[in-house]
Amino acid sequence: MPTLQYEPLENLAREIFRAIQVPPHGAAWMAKLLVRANLRGHDSHGVIRIPQYIATWKKGEANPTAEPVIVQEGPATALVDGKLGFGQIVARRGMEVAMGKAAAVGVSTVGVFNSNHVGRLADYTEMALERDMLALLAVNAGGAGQRMAPWGGRAPRLSTNPLAFACPTGDAAPISFDIATTVAAEGKVRVKRNRKEKMPLGWVLDAEGKPTTDPNDLYATPPGTILPAGGHKGYCLALMIEVLAGIVARGGYSTEHPGPIRNGVFMIVVDIGRFIPPGTFRAEVDDLVRYLKTCPPVPGSDGILTPGEPEMITEAERRRSGIFVEDETWRQIEDVARGLGVAIPTP
Amino acid sequence: MPTLQYEPLENLAREIFRAIQVPPHGAAWMAKLLVRANLRGHDSHGVIRIPQYIATWKKGEANPTAEPVIVQEGPATALVDGKLGFGQIVARRGMEVAMGKAAAVGVSTVGVFNSNHVGRLADYTEMALERDMLALLAVNAGGAGQRMAPWGGRAPRLSTNPLAFACPTGDAAPISFDIATTVAAEGKVRVKRNRKEKMPLGWVLDAEGKPTTDPNDLYATPPGTILPAGGHKGYCLALMIEVLAGIVARGGYSTEHPGPIRNGVFMIVVDIGRFIPPGTFRAEVDDLVRYLKTCPPVPGSDGILTPGEPEMITEAERRRSGIFVEDETWRQIEDVARGLGVAIPTP
Repeated sequence: MPTLQYEPLENLAREIFRAIQVPPHGAAWMAKLLVRANLRGHDSHGVIRIPQYIATWKKGEANPTAEPVIVQEGPATALVDGKLGFGQIVARRGMEVAMGKAAAVGVSTVGVFNSNHVGRLADYTEMALERDMLALLAVNAGGAGQRMAPWGGRAPRLSTNPLAFACPTGDAAPISFDIATTVAAEGKVRVKRNRKEKMPLGWVLDAEGKPTTDPNDLYATPPGTILPAGGHKGYCLALMIEVLAGIVARGGYSTEHPGPIRNGVFMIVVDIGRFIPPGTFRAEVDDLVRYLKTCPPVPGSDGILTPGEPEMITEAERRRSGIFVEDETWRQIEDVARGLGVAIPTP
Repeated sequence: MPTLQYEPLENLAREIFRAIQVPPHGAAWMAKLLVRANLRGHDSHGVIRIPQYIATWKKGEANPTAEPVIVQEGPATALVDGKLGFGQIVARRGMEVAMGKAAAVGVSTVGVFNSNHVGRLADYTEMALERDMLALLAVNAGGAGQRMAPWGGRAPRLSTNPLAFACPTGDAAPISFDIATTVAAEGKVRVKRNRKEKMPLGWVLDAEGKPTTDPNDLYATPPGTILPAGGHKGYCLALMIEVLAGIVARGGYSTEHPGPIRNGVFMIVVDIGRFIPPGTFRAEVDDLVRYLKTCPPVPGSDGILTPGEPEMITEAERRRSGIFVEDETWRQIEDVARGLGVAIPTP
């Protein structure tokens, strides 16, 4: 299994995207976010996605030079057509629009559609931090990628519709989470299947609606379903996100005839200073975090962390030790690079 | 156990609040929301609260004639000081401000502090429906009512911080949920304790951090904790809500020295027409609901419902059959009414 330092890996990713005509700034941003996902421990959203993005481009479903366009707007709202650009570029543009409007009037809501895979949502909510704003993001799969049943059901009807939030802090690590509304992300079930391991009970129901530990049941015909996080509560959140990202943001919603997986994105950005001086906000969040950390741990726990801290710890480690890329993923990336005439770094 | 029709019960509640000088419109609204909670099956938020509200008033902690005041505002934002009014009146005022601003600029965020118990959050999010808006509400307990540990911990640090959402539909029942971010609301544990029943495993950890089925462990010294819904995901949401309602909305946040339980309320209202014609929105939500309901049920399920439907079904039943009030609650309400010289209807 090759191990690469993050810089040559990021350079490789950037050159691959440059080779298919993504403009320099966009290619660098895409590469940065993919490698950042690896650095932060979310390998499912890291460089493993490069072959997928190139495949999408080869099918003509991603336009490397697309420029997102605002198709409708008001003082605090906008609807952005991503023109089938790469999601990292489209979602960044959406956040820029949202932050501009929040700066002007205090809060904004932006919907984004016609976007390819945006990757980790935390990359966009965290854009708000340096502007003393906080952000909420809700994303669906455009009505495709159905994996969750409505509560009480046994056939997939909704995607794993994730929700992300980030807010600034003072000395404490920024608070940032990015969570699927299912018990487990689909990628985790896929890893169990590929490793021929059992899943814990409580992740998946088979097509008959019976609890199962066999990951193959999710991919059978007819398929199983991943359970919502927190039972009916995860179903409530997933349905809300389907409405916000799929209908309000025009991303497309679940039906019998889903199209290709695309991301509908619904963003809310709040300018903190409209409510409380940002310095006071940061001090109070720090004080809250301090108090949380006085909590004694359960037996076997590593202690109390805030959302975003596990990622920071992993990033510090991997910046030193490098990023492991499993053989099959590395082989696919090498193939892509070779096909595009991009030089491959030595692991 | 007395059974009352909802109209005499609502009249009784209204007259009790009138007797402590709540203005007529406010008293009628408070009575309507408490009885609506009973009608919709949430007895924990129904007339059982009347003795609590009167006790709060007797202690001088609720001002029946308080008028909420906007202390800070912008085009899309406002901060409302509830002046220790009853929560139903304060939160309604907050929503009126939020809807006015959302009508003007498309989206708004309003924070409310110095509010007594607001009751069911769904009552406020659902105010948005008739104006073709959608609403999100996040509420904390002002830093008090600590019941949940941070993930990995075993001592209470956060309240059960609930989240609510509602959006309009066409022919389908409105989508509306109002969920604690813990596995179970504290009231459910209390009911188990009072009935001397065991809880399911997975609700509560004792003070040592061990799973327990004994509801008394939650109330022991030192106390146990209610687990977050969906494990670390519920912790993420509860912390977000503590920041939004407790710090941004100035409601007060968790520390070692909590004050009395009050509600910080953070509201987001979106004017749907800024993104999609409301008629199209309603038709698409109906189509999504139709598709969800094609899902075959798991064995033993009553079929697929959308959030808010269970409440509608219960309300239709209880409007016909009346509302059961347990003896102890009825005795307390009779005491309150007698003390204030209010006529008591015959159950």
